[in-house]
Amino acid sequence: MSTNIYDRLKELNIVLPPVPPQNVASYVMSVQTGNVVFVSGHIAKKDGAVWVGKLGDNITTEEGKAAARSIGIDLINTLHAHTGDLNKITRIVKLTGLVNSTQTFTEHHLVINGCSNLLNEVFGKVGVHARAAFGVAQIPLGSCVEIEMVVEVAASN
Amino acid sequence: MSTNIYDRLKELNIVLPPVPPQNVASYVMSVQTGNVVFVSGHIAKKDGAVWVGKLGDNITTEEGKAAARSIGIDLINTLHAHTGDLNKITRIVKLTGLVNSTQTFTEHHLVINGCSNLLNEVFGKVGVHARAAFGVAQIPLGSCVEIEMVVEVAASN
Amino acid sequence: MSTNIYDRLKELNIVLPPVPPQNVASYVMSVQTGNVVFVSGHIAKKDGAVWVGKLGDNITTEEGKAAARSIGIDLINTLHAHTGDLNKITRIVKLTGLVNSTQTFTEHHLVINGCSNLLNEVFGKVGVHARAAFGVAQIPLGSCVEIEMVVEVAASN
Repeated sequence: MSTNIYDRLKELNIVLPPVPPQNVASYVMSVQTGNVVFVSGHIAKKDGAVWVGKLGDNITTEEGKAAARSIGIDLINTLHAHTGDLNKITRIVKLTGLVNSTQTFTEHHLVINGCSNLLNEVFGKVGVHARAAFGVAQIPLGSCVEIEMVVEVAASN
Repeated sequence: MSTNIYDRLKELNIVLPPVPPQNVASYVMSVQTGNVVFVSGHIAKKDGAVWVGKLGDNITTEEGKAAARSIGIDLINTLHAHTGDLNKITRIVKLTGLVNSTQTFTEHHLVINGCSNLLNEVFGKVGVHARAAFGVAQIPLGSCVEIEMVVEVAASN
Repeated sequence: MSTNIYDRLKELNIVLPPVPPQNVASYVMSVQTGNVVFVSGHIAKKDGAVWVGKLGDNITTEEGKAAARSIGIDLINTLHAHTGDLNKITRIVKLTGLVNSTQTFTEHHLVINGCSNLLNEVFGKVGVHARAAFGVAQIPLGSCVEIEMVVEVAASN
């Protein structure tokens, strides 16, 4: 396994999309304090549009897992924009995975594994994180999943 | 735009209410580690009572946005109590906005803008934060919105 | 009140269970950055099985509070595994309490007090934390409560 993250992304056939605007209306996609980066909640997208759906209703656990994986790529892209070099990331610290779910769906952990597994594949030991996953009533614009992260980066000198 | 936060609050005609008790039953309104302050979830209040309602049901997006703005003032008040001087705040790092919403309401981001916009107005560039917003099944006492924050303050010497 | 946390646990007749595996599928139970530990969301268990239920439906506030207290013991156990010595904990910084609740249940704060009170009993002033509590649509495996924490530990030299 390659230790350069960009080589690793190539090995996994992951192409980072063009970096989207990092300033949204009244907030930004990431803020750093000390060497800890708080990454905003990212919603799922498919073919450029919001990936709409509610787990337990009109979207399967496997589809939700794929949506979570696609969010993972967007989160990595935000970290690429933030750090300028993904190799500066020293630890994915914490991931919070929100699943747009009915009051009876109980496989949120399997859905969020789509993102957790990706982070492990791309970052190796650095990608092993603490996590919370749960079901929410709804997500902005009807997205099926939303994920936020806390990430540690190398101290800049 | 004024750089003294208290002058800026005056320019915006924002009057901080008397500081409420910072110790609630078994927890407190804020805890600092290093120079990062974790601020407890604040629920919405109107005329001293809990601002009850569920977005998508009995309260509009505009009303929810006003509730989020009022929480923003309470959050600033808690930071005033915590720091003793709001000018010591060096960055609003992260805001998590919970909207008491039906399973079909999808404008949580517009609701939470009420708080995000206020933080931008009051703190300028220091107020630009990372954010997550989503809909929850319910909030303590039926409040329509609940918001928590992570804030960076100047190192005390 | 004892200042040694293990003596204090004995005084409270709290027996930490055998430490469960700290590596779950694609994530871990805790990750430290600097001297701050992010603890993964812990679900409620009873007699070794998931403590299933939805507040406002088939489980009472008192039962939910007991479930939150039992999660508190599991969280302390995770911190014991993480630190090797609970006396190294210098502050419980923040607790996020997720209650599996109907759209009408509004006593999430009373449920989560089960965990907050325990942390106060065990850690004294060190256990006084910031907090957010709210109701979610569902929790993995149907658990009635899920709690995550941010904890400060003494700098290792």
